[in-house]
Amino acid sequence: MDLPKVEIIGVKGIPIIGEGDDLASLIVEAVERMGLNLRDGDILVVSQIVVSKSEGRVRKLEEYKPSRFAEEIARKSGKDPRHVEAILQSSKRIVRMRDGLLICEAVGGHICANAGVDLSNAGIGRVALLPEDPDLSARRIRERIKELAGVDVAVIISDTHGRPLRRGSINVAIGCSGLKPILDRRGERDLYGRTLRSKMICVADELASAAELVIGQADEGIPVAIIRGYKFERGEEPASTIPRSERDDLFL
Amino acid sequence: MDLPKVEIIGVKGIPIIGEGDDLASLIVEAVERMGLNLRDGDILVVSQIVVSKSEGRVRKLEEYKPSRFAEEIARKSGKDPRHVEAILQSSKRIVRMRDGLLICEAVGGHICANAGVDLSNAGIGRVALLPEDPDLSARRIRERIKELAGVDVAVIISDTHGRPLRRGSINVAIGCSGLKPILDRRGERDLYGRTLRSKMICVADELASAAELVIGQADEGIPVAIIRGYKFERGEEPASTIPRSERDDLFL
Repeated sequence: MDLPKVEIIGVKGIPIIGEGDDLASLIVEAVERMGLNLRDGDILVVSQIVVSKSEGRVRKLEEYKPSRFAEEIARKSGKDPRHVEAILQSSKRIVRMRDGLLICEAVGGHICANAGVDLSNAGIGRVALLPEDPDLSARRIRERIKELAGVDVAVIISDTHGRPLRRGSINVAIGCSGLKPILDRRGERDLYGRTLRSKMICVADELASAAELVIGQADEGIPVAIIRGYKFERGEEPASTIPRSERDDLFL
Repeated sequence: MDLPKVEIIGVKGIPIIGEGDDLASLIVEAVERMGLNLRDGDILVVSQIVVSKSEGRVRKLEEYKPSRFAEEIARKSGKDPRHVEAILQSSKRIVRMRDGLLICEAVGGHICANAGVDLSNAGIGRVALLPEDPDLSARRIRERIKELAGVDVAVIISDTHGRPLRRGSINVAIGCSGLKPILDRRGERDLYGRTLRSKMICVADELASAAELVIGQADEGIPVAIIRGYKFERGEEPASTIPRSERDDLFL
C-alpha cells in the first residue's frame, strides 16, 4: 500500500560555515556522505544562520558605534549597546518597542524581534545579520544545486520567529525559491461538496516549522533538512510576499 | 548510518465521523489496515473537525436564532446570520471586528477567525463548533489508544488559524496530551559555547504544521497523521498554555 508519507531528513556533517564557503556544495557533499542523493521535488530547508555566514553577514560588535538612542535601549534591555546599534541599522521600521525589547521590520518585510540580528551561533564578540536578500539566497542555492547535482529542488531559508497571540517561537520562511509559498485552495470542495470559502495556506512557513523538528536539535549541529514526499506547487513567488501589509492586517 | 529523520504518515481510510463514534478505535483500525502499528513515542495529530464530530459538536444552522447584532454583522460580511450567531455564542471575547470579519477568543484562549466555528466539512446546513475542551479531547484519545493498542502516544488536536503579520493560515495545536507544548531551551549553549538567551519553541504548533503536509490534502480525506521519530519532552501542560496573556503580548 502506498503510504501518504512525508520525510524530514536532517543533513549531518556540514562543517562550521565561514564567509565565501560554497554552501550548496557543502550540502551536496554532506548528503552524499549520508549515503543519500538529492532528488527532483525535494525541498531543502536551510537555516538562516549558515546562509548569513556563507554570505559574510557576520560582523564584529566592535564595528558598531552605538548612538545615544541605542545606548538608552541597551540600558533598558540589558543588551550590548553595539548589538542594539546593529539591530537599529538593520531595521526598516521599529514596529513595537517596550522595556528595551524591539520588534522590527527586517529585510523582505518580515517582522521579528531584533530585526533578526542575533548573537547566537555568530561567534564570541560577533553578531549575525540576516542575508541581504533571503529570496535571492534561496534562488542561488537552488541554482547551484542544479549545477552540481543535476536536480531541481525547492529551497526555503528558515528563521525562528516569535509571534503575536501565541507563546513560543516557530520557524518560518524568510526566503524561498521554486515553490509557491502560499497555496490557494479557495474554490476546492469539502467532503460534502461545499466550496471552501477561504483557504490560503502558508505552506512555506509550515515546511519551515516541519524542518525545525530535525534542525532544532542544536547540539547535533544540523543546519539543513531535506523534506521529501511533499507535493508542492511550483512557482517563483518570493517569501517577501508572505508579510501582510499593515492595512490588510485585521489583527493589528 | 543512523539518519536524523522524522516521518509524517497520513492515516487513510478513516470513515466520515459521526456523533458518538469511537475516534481512537477508528484510528487504530485504520492504522492497522495500512499495515502499520502505533508505537510508543509516536505523536498523533488529529484534525479538529473529526474530534468535533465525534463529540457531537455539529449543529444545524436552524437551531440558531440570530440577534440583531448577528444580523448586522452578517449583512456586512455576507455570512449566514445563523452562522454569525453560532460564532458569537462560541466566543469568549471579540478581539477584532472589521467589515463583518470576526477575530474571537475561543475555547482555551486560542484567538482565531470566527471562534473556530466553521461551515467547511460540517455538512450542508450545518456548522461545526470546536470541541468543548480540546485538551481533554486529546487526553481521552490518548488514554483510549493506550487501552486499545497498549502504546503511549502523544496526541495533538490541530486547527487551521490565520495570524497577524503573515499571510496564509498555518496549522496550530489547540489541544494536546503527553508532550510539553513549549520546549524551553534557555540555558542550552550554541556552537561557540554561548548560552542561548531566549529560546522557547512552540513544538506543538510546529508539529501541527508538519502534520498539515499530509492532512492538508483535503480530497484524500486524511484527518489524522502519525509523526514518528521526533524526540519530544513528555509533559502534561495543556495547549491552553500556548495563548499569550494580553499583557504579555508585545505585538499588540
